[in-house]
Amino acid sequence: MNIGFIGSAGHWGYALKQVNNHKVAGIAPGHPGENMEGMKKSLSDLGVEVVAYENYMDLLAQIEVAVVASRPDLNASITEECLKRDIYVFSEKPLAITMEQLDKLREVQKNSKAFVSAMFGMRCLPWFRTMKEALPAIGTIRLLNGQKSYKLRTRPDYYKKQETFGGIIPWVAIHALDWIYAMTGLSVNRIDAMTNNEYNRDHGDLEMTSICMFELEGGVLASVSADFYRPVPAKTHGDDRLRIVGTEGVLESIDGVVKLIDKDGERELPLLAAEDVFEQFLRRTKGEDVGVSSEDSFYMTEVALKAEASALKKKENISK
Amino acid sequence: MNIGFIGSAGHWGYALKQVNNHKVAGIAPGHPGENMEGMKKSLSDLGVEVVAYENYMDLLAQIEVAVVASRPDLNASITEECLKRDIYVFSEKPLAITMEQLDKLREVQKNSKAFVSAMFGMRCLPWFRTMKEALPAIGTIRLLNGQKSYKLRTRPDYYKKQETFGGIIPWVAIHALDWIYAMTGLSVNRIDAMTNNEYNRDHGDLEMTSICMFELEGGVLASVSADFYRPVPAKTHGDDRLRIVGTEGVLESIDGVVKLIDKDGERELPLLAAEDVFEQFLRRTKGEDVGVSSEDSFYMTEVALKAEASALKKKENISK
Repeated sequence: MNIGFIGSAGHWGYALKQVNNHKVAGIAPGHPGENMEGMKKSLSDLGVEVVAYENYMDLLAQIEVAVVASRPDLNASITEECLKRDIYVFSEKPLAITMEQLDKLREVQKNSKAFVSAMFGMRCLPWFRTMKEALPAIGTIRLLNGQKSYKLRTRPDYYKKQETFGGIIPWVAIHALDWIYAMTGLSVNRIDAMTNNEYNRDHGDLEMTSICMFELEGGVLASVSADFYRPVPAKTHGDDRLRIVGTEGVLESIDGVVKLIDKDGERELPLLAAEDVFEQFLRRTKGEDVGVSSEDSFYMTEVALKAEASALKKKENISK
Repeated sequence: MNIGFIGSAGHWGYALKQVNNHKVAGIAPGHPGENMEGMKKSLSDLGVEVVAYENYMDLLAQIEVAVVASRPDLNASITEECLKRDIYVFSEKPLAITMEQLDKLREVQKNSKAFVSAMFGMRCLPWFRTMKEALPAIGTIRLLNGQKSYKLRTRPDYYKKQETFGGIIPWVAIHALDWIYAMTGLSVNRIDAMTNNEYNRDHGDLEMTSICMFELEGGVLASVSADFYRPVPAKTHGDDRLRIVGTEGVLESIDGVVKLIDKDGERELPLLAAEDVFEQFLRRTKGEDVGVSSEDSFYMTEVALKAEASALKKKENISK
């Protein structure tokens, strides 16, 4: 297929494993001034020399698939332009940073032959796949606790404004929301969240901490803690964790290690191999039921935006 | 000092290490039919033969200190009777299971020469003391995540009614609320919680899962997850955890092991020795500023009751 890369923020690297099996028709920034040099070099290192467009609109006529990963506030409109031209979109999460953007995107997709799917690549990681396969051992799921903790280092300016970034929940916590949904398939009946943006090392609006609390279908409870305080010397960028409590056992992943406690005691589980989220996406464009669905991508974006809104609303109440 | 034991539920065992340094004037059930045989045997094993009273009111004239650990709904009124007679009370947590009970207890204490202190014995454990001592390494605290997970096994009937038990938050999660408060000293500005009592293995009202979310002074966020689903084969009764995220590092305890990540990297901390919570309580009755204060005991009970009320209120809204 003819693939185009638009924007160089976030997880466009997910697509790199497949570039030699397809044709990269070009790359383009999502907005003037977005630096595409790192991407150009990554592709060149793989033997792929690309045409660099200045305006992504000029690239659209050349491609069947777009890898969209630009500024969070711009991704929705880029995706719209793609869907209008029946171009399949592999988009950075969240798909949109406002409900207005999201609603519009849903409408546009209805009239498109293509679809958008979010870069929920963690569903393909060994720990995630291993936990999912082991779910039957723990009976009926009743409680889930997710954690994301990232190193802040120094972030680009767009992180510093809520209007360009969208918030810690749609950008960071959303991964854990997706784990919870992908594990349970349960929709969310009740959402409550808190965030805080103090002590953010001169990062403007940027929220450094957040807690989300969910009641899922059937009275299943879930919490997600997300923060930007992981110390730089820590051995990994992200301290990702998921604990799933069932009626017959508890499954947990910390540091990519999966442990199960059930009627047979406590033990570490052997890990399944990783899968390739972009390869699955490409198969999905051919009609296979594999990878992250568009429905899941929209729904997780919606849940994340509602959680972020719940947190921001609390702050308004406090300041009144 | 002359010590009396009233009721045989919960953590009265905390007092056993001190019984040979003082006089046990007697033991009594908190309500007719409460089985005191196990306590009698534990004391006898330590060489302490006790007078067993049928009615605790008959014991009160003999004692200066009461170890109160009967049914959750009765502890407040037992404590009241003690405080009215200037008897110091080492009480099971929560001090009360309704705000009415708690307010009355506060009034009674105002007119007493004695005080009540809650059995927050986990403050004396090696992991807790080690984390507290290490706090300066992590800078300003911004986020805390606590976890309690207990084995259910089969619980006495009083667990099966909200009116006699009081709920999973005042009874289980309260420990983690106390850790958070004892670590930070920060009061709670905002409380939100969810609980669920389905799949509770014929335990009536008993809630099996809960999540609490708090905003503390200064915008510090905290979450607590508590459940009764720990599988019986697990190596410990409770899976207690606390994670404290600061501006300069992260401190964490899992399985009693304390880890620190800060500017110097990741490492396990050597554990401080345990302390004796009841010995501290006895010193506190002599005016020393040691152990769990009455103020903390009242405050943590209040926070737990408000969190439980927040969760129950949501359910009312759902059923409407």
